[in-house]
Amino acid sequence: MELLKDKILTEGRVFPGQILKVDGFLNHQIDVTLMDRIGEEFYAAYKDRGITRILTIESSGIAIACSVARSFGVPVLFAKKSRSLNLGNDLYTATVTSYTYKKDYQVTISRDYLSAEDHVLIVDDFLATGNAMLGLLQLCRDAGATVEGVGICIEKGFQDGGKILRDQGISVTSLAIIDEMTDDGKIIFRD
Amino acid sequence: MELLKDKILTEGRVFPGQILKVDGFLNHQIDVTLMDRIGEEFYAAYKDRGITRILTIESSGIAIACSVARSFGVPVLFAKKSRSLNLGNDLYTATVTSYTYKKDYQVTISRDYLSAEDHVLIVDDFLATGNAMLGLLQLCRDAGATVEGVGICIEKGFQDGGKILRDQGISVTSLAIIDEMTDDGKIIFRD
Repeated sequence: MELLKDKILTEGRVFPGQILKVDGFLNHQIDVTLMDRIGEEFYAAYKDRGITRILTIESSGIAIACSVARSFGVPVLFAKKSRSLNLGNDLYTATVTSYTYKKDYQVTISRDYLSAEDHVLIVDDFLATGNAMLGLLQLCRDAGATVEGVGICIEKGFQDGGKILRDQGISVTSLAIIDEMTDDGKIIFRD
Repeated sequence: MELLKDKILTEGRVFPGQILKVDGFLNHQIDVTLMDRIGEEFYAAYKDRGITRILTIESSGIAIACSVARSFGVPVLFAKKSRSLNLGNDLYTATVTSYTYKKDYQVTISRDYLSAEDHVLIVDDFLATGNAMLGLLQLCRDAGATVEGVGICIEKGFQDGGKILRDQGISVTSLAIIDEMTDDGKIIFRD
């Protein structure tokens, strides 16, 4: 998606440790017009898949999910993060290991809002190691829901998440895949 | 707002401790059509105030803020919650005491995205004690930004937050004010 790549090149900032900050338009301050264009892109890619729910994870996936859900005319469901292991029987729960913080946390959704009838498009701002995404896939499996695809704004192509998901046969649509970020701040996209 | 009150009456659930669960449409699963109607309500109330930013706090304010921002044609900015006290000089920071968890946490926004030029509408899903809202007001004061108003979906009128804000001269627009929730689950709105 050229508009997103242009935004990343003009407003993104690269920091040591392969960190890309896009908090001016994606995950702190949010450019809602861009979100809506992203929503249309994912709608074009998955409109024939009978999508019933857009699933994401708090917090930075929520804005994107809302624009995608508007395009599809379906609800958003966002998984919550929790540090507690004892969360009750009315939730689907999966454990995620945070790459950044080297700690485990739980992701949960209420059993009321996801079932075997659902056809789910999962969306998020970033895909890197894929750990959070594997947690969301686990929640869908536990609910018996069908995952029709995964829609990502920015995939870090130099980390394993995309490969892990595609090797499982999951349809992954990334609007921008970064193959390299150089020490002097240059961002190189995959063609 | 009758549509929101109807949703609360038909889908909300009251739990002991004056807890209202509206996670079927507002803060877990999200009804985006309802969010857009809420956005239009707040636009109607504040459209003449020169709003430049919609400010909220993660996570459950983000969906509402995005719909409000779309109506105004301005960006969203969401404050982040953190447990760390040592957060660096590039952030505005305020301390909030959680009524639910009896713990302090920090709310932060980047100095890059809020300034004395800004006219801010703050929005959130709930107003109860007002502690989180006081934190957001502090961040705006530190930035020198003008707070034009506070837009709330559901105000718990039996708690102090609304009174505290209005006593400070802040324009608070609540789309549904609950005066009482009875032990048998009845919800009584203020007229």
